[in-house]
Amino acid sequence: MPEIAQTPKPPYYAVIFSSIRTDGDHGYAAMAERMLASAAEQPGFLGIESAREGLGITVSYWESLEAIQHWKNDTEHKEAQRLGRGQWYSGFRVRIARVEREYGM
Amino acid sequence: MPEIAQTPKPPYYAVIFSSIRTDGDHGYAAMAERMLASAAEQPGFLGIESAREGLGITVSYWESLEAIQHWKNDTEHKEAQRLGRGQWYSGFRVRIARVEREYGM
Repeated sequence: MPEIAQTPKPPYYAVIFSSIRTDGDHGYAAMAERMLASAAEQPGFLGIESAREGLGITVSYWESLEAIQHWKNDTEHKEAQRLGRGQWYSGFRVRIARVEREYGM
Repeated sequence: MPEIAQTPKPPYYAVIFSSIRTDGDHGYAAMAERMLASAAEQPGFLGIESAREGLGITVSYWESLEAIQHWKNDTEHKEAQRLGRGQWYSGFRVRIARVEREYGM
């Protein structure tokens, strides 16, 4: 069941990760699952949303820039980043943004 | 062919629209296509990325908060927003964020 992240009142931060996969799995699915679980355990983690339909978009939400930097430097996450650049993605873009307003239904 | 938006050097703004659809089309697909085309013609539009896999995530990029507000008030877009609340989405969240850093491959 897909879920919209339940984030607190802004301000907080979003990491928008947009990617295009190469063909084949090459260990991607298992690592992606581990990274989702591991991100959720990091200090300052607020939530995550993900969808892939040709283009993949994963948005993770964080309390602070420090929390984002801490997760970026996680040992297994760094290994995932290395494999992402080398094998899994033909292209990607990471955008770090400060959420200033939020509304919905 | 999915594409990652070619955005300029930050700062700029992102609208992260996360949604869960109701069952059935009810005119959604045609309107979604029109809205994509119309957004791209708005002043201050920088790019858009979209994927749906259960959860739908559309991120549009804009030069300024004024450009976002202008698009929000577009007549046909307002009608799409009304239909979205009434028919197409069982839930959605809009987050407006200032992109501060960007990198990729």
